[in-house]
Amino acid sequence: MTQATARARGGRSSLGNDGVSYPVPDEAHRESLWKALEARAKRALAEGYTVAVVQGLGFVGAVMTGVLANARREDGSPRYFVIGVDLPSEESYWKVAMLEAGRSPVRSEDPAVEEYVTRGHATGNLAATADERAYSLASVIVVDIALSVELPDGPGDEAAVRMAPFLSAIDAIGRTMRPDALVVIETTVPPGTTERVALPALERAFTARGLKGSPLLAHSYERVMPGVDYVRSIERFWRAYAGVSPAAADAAGDFLSSFIDTGAFPLTRLGSTTASELAKVMENSYRAMNIAFVDEWTRAAQDLGVNLYEVVDAIAVRKGTHDNIRRPGFGVGGYCLPKDGYLAQWGITQLFGADSTLSMTLAALRINRDMPRHTLDLLCGAMGSLAGKRVLVAGLSYRPDVADARYSPTLAFCHLLEQEGASPSIHDPFAPELGEIPFPVVDLAPGLREADAVVFAVRHPAYRALVPDDFVRAGVVIDAADVLTDTVAQELADRGTRVRGVGKGHWSGAHTSAMAP
Amino acid sequence: MTQATARARGGRSSLGNDGVSYPVPDEAHRESLWKALEARAKRALAEGYTVAVVQGLGFVGAVMTGVLANARREDGSPRYFVIGVDLPSEESYWKVAMLEAGRSPVRSEDPAVEEYVTRGHATGNLAATADERAYSLASVIVVDIALSVELPDGPGDEAAVRMAPFLSAIDAIGRTMRPDALVVIETTVPPGTTERVALPALERAFTARGLKGSPLLAHSYERVMPGVDYVRSIERFWRAYAGVSPAAADAAGDFLSSFIDTGAFPLTRLGSTTASELAKVMENSYRAMNIAFVDEWTRAAQDLGVNLYEVVDAIAVRKGTHDNIRRPGFGVGGYCLPKDGYLAQWGITQLFGADSTLSMTLAALRINRDMPRHTLDLLCGAMGSLAGKRVLVAGLSYRPDVADARYSPTLAFCHLLEQEGASPSIHDPFAPELGEIPFPVVDLAPGLREADAVVFAVRHPAYRALVPDDFVRAGVVIDAADVLTDTVAQELADRGTRVRGVGKGHWSGAHTSAMAP
Repeated sequence: MTQATARARGGRSSLGNDGVSYPVPDEAHRESLWKALEARAKRALAEGYTVAVVQGLGFVGAVMTGVLANARREDGSPRYFVIGVDLPSEESYWKVAMLEAGRSPVRSEDPAVEEYVTRGHATGNLAATADERAYSLASVIVVDIALSVELPDGPGDEAAVRMAPFLSAIDAIGRTMRPDALVVIETTVPPGTTERVALPALERAFTARGLKGSPLLAHSYERVMPGVDYVRSIERFWRAYAGVSPAAADAAGDFLSSFIDTGAFPLTRLGSTTASELAKVMENSYRAMNIAFVDEWTRAAQDLGVNLYEVVDAIAVRKGTHDNIRRPGFGVGGYCLPKDGYLAQWGITQLFGADSTLSMTLAALRINRDMPRHTLDLLCGAMGSLAGKRVLVAGLSYRPDVADARYSPTLAFCHLLEQEGASPSIHDPFAPELGEIPFPVVDLAPGLREADAVVFAVRHPAYRALVPDDFVRAGVVIDAADVLTDTVAQELADRGTRVRGVGKGHWSGAHTSAMAP
Repeated sequence: MTQATARARGGRSSLGNDGVSYPVPDEAHRESLWKALEARAKRALAEGYTVAVVQGLGFVGAVMTGVLANARREDGSPRYFVIGVDLPSEESYWKVAMLEAGRSPVRSEDPAVEEYVTRGHATGNLAATADERAYSLASVIVVDIALSVELPDGPGDEAAVRMAPFLSAIDAIGRTMRPDALVVIETTVPPGTTERVALPALERAFTARGLKGSPLLAHSYERVMPGVDYVRSIERFWRAYAGVSPAAADAAGDFLSSFIDTGAFPLTRLGSTTASELAKVMENSYRAMNIAFVDEWTRAAQDLGVNLYEVVDAIAVRKGTHDNIRRPGFGVGGYCLPKDGYLAQWGITQLFGADSTLSMTLAALRINRDMPRHTLDLLCGAMGSLAGKRVLVAGLSYRPDVADARYSPTLAFCHLLEQEGASPSIHDPFAPELGEIPFPVVDLAPGLREADAVVFAVRHPAYRALVPDDFVRAGVVIDAADVLTDTVAQELADRGTRVRGVGKGHWSGAHTSAMAP
């Protein structure tokens, strides 16, 4: 049924990332879908499967359903009958529909992402629904919904954390879950959320339902890395976890061991769920701060005419203490790094009423948000006024070779360009999969041909293959992502193009230390 | 000759760290010493040695003399006739005297430090002098003098860098050096110093002497780590270097290869001496910032009742990105970390007139200077008023098992204690070697017996062997250095001692998450 057909029948529809419009089932349809799912789950139970429900089918949850469907018992047979759950909304239902049809709602360079879903569908141990009664079937419920956070707009240090959607998701679980089921929160949340928000919510639900006993509630943060190691970053990677009680922690440890290679990657059990929540946001804040550090030294190195790439490489030889020092760059994106520090501060302040301030951490996030401004400074320095100039920004995803543009610094940069009167356009090899883009999207070759200036923002392999002849018209090229080799930069400069590189010092200027043999 | 004898004869004397008073030679004596040294050096030259002079016999220079004396040619014979040079002053001359007598002015847990000096003395290819004419004998001169820096006193961000003593040391070299000699600056200096301070100084000297040609000047920063790997941190560790000209860089590369195992640790040649200087201060600033980061999370974790040790350990499993995350602690000392960020900013501002500001870097140094205040807060929280209380601070050196108390945070902490009206005393197993200490120094057993409160500031092994019975009287024990095991802490708490641990959350309080199995 097309979107038009659904609309004609008065129903709502949900547009998938495959371009297909999926009708959101109406009341009557939902009831028949539920009956069918319930029957399948009961048959699976009778066949010895454990029923596991994953709440939230985003970048983590969708892949988790596949991973759980792929988990094996000792005899090699599938361990779980897995049900993915998301909302019956226009924004979300397409994920349910795709998963139920045996296709992953998440596209990935890792073929295992699609494989696992296809196989689970074929085997019959992977299903999806928008019906919250699914929680009633489960022995284990994994919470993978995203927490809604709005980053500060400007130099402020306070992000708007909206706890209500998270809380209503937990309430939905509480209304129908079996009292002996294990609930594992994988969502990155402000420290204290599991003990001070989720646990009371489940306890209220138990009381309302007249249930005795305490919910088995745990927190264990994922470390999912979109890209070629997507599945591996779940199955073969380190995990920390904690429970609100020893029994909850024991159950969570058993559950995690059922799909993680804990022989090679032993689990770490922490003293409290607050510790587990804190570990996640601290881990990402550490990374964010290490990026901010290099940003300020990049600006300094530019002033000193020093190529910071070679400096950083000289420092990074010190394994174990300095090898994670970051290279200069364009900006910071991705779902975690720009926001997790704010979650930490929110938990400290709002859930504990404590007054400690993560001043360095928050300063780092501010610096990172402001990073594209350095590239803008180089562009303005090379070009003078940007008014009326066509600027091609090459790269939108937050990492090379990853179809994920959440919190992309390229968009922030394009807004800055507009403020300067320029006309930005964007190229990205993954553009068709990156959702709606609020700037003109162009193909690479014509984009390069027509631009007055080109800015490289992401180190996509396609850009590294470019040769000087590809830049027909651009008078200015700014490389913020270490895309151009010294040779190409020099050739462009020899033809009269003004070439500047973030972190490259006096690259292609009077003092070409970077190009000394 | 004793100090008394020297004084009686009207001469000055210099007190060594071995307790011996060495007479500073007078004019006539210096002349005869010089004649003898010159004759030895010329004999060595005739025997095929290369003459190398090390300027400055501190923690780096003294050990460098031994390392160079130990460098071998392919046939296994010593490569260098090494002359250590320091000033004929009461503060410094004892180092010359000890080295000339075949004893290392630097004590170390690394036996090679003493061995190399002893062997060089026995072989006859290691000498020392306070006569600047020594530079005239050298084919290579290594600058290892310390740069005088006064840290900000209070919340300020500007350190007082005194360039004059450094400049007069370079002037001394310029007055007598052979025009074809290589000068390698190993001193950590503000970026730009080699090109914009040292090179003009040598050029002025050459002009004054009517010499043609350019000085062969290079910068290569050491990464000396006092402790058991002292010598190894020179001979078998990574080095970056750069020269003011290709010829200077070539010569520096050859020189470094003569005593560093460059097969296992290949050299990194950088584009400019400014890049080399920047690399050193950036490297240490990175470390300092990573410490500051954990400090602010330590305070937050304390508010949340989370044991940050277990959180950090859970994060550190991520090799290559997070394994250098630091554990909670007492403070930051040592010669480099508290100051190098200031050198960077000084170079940017004073030598380049640039306006970039290393805001995170400087904030980190401020946080680190303030770190002992967190321990003070815990102490006051457990003790109430400190007025009249005897507080034993256990640990003065900046790392466990290292006899080096430069910029010790223990001293800053003791000053804070005094401001609170307490009577601080200090214990350190290395106290006799740590120079003058402006607080009472006590032995461990009586110190523990007599203190109202004990604060562990350094993780010396001796402290980790303590048992509850050793703390006879102390009502409060603050562990800022992960010294006490959970068991010992719990036993002390059971006896009524108030025990708190920096980064330990609710350790020995109501909520003993750290002690959960």
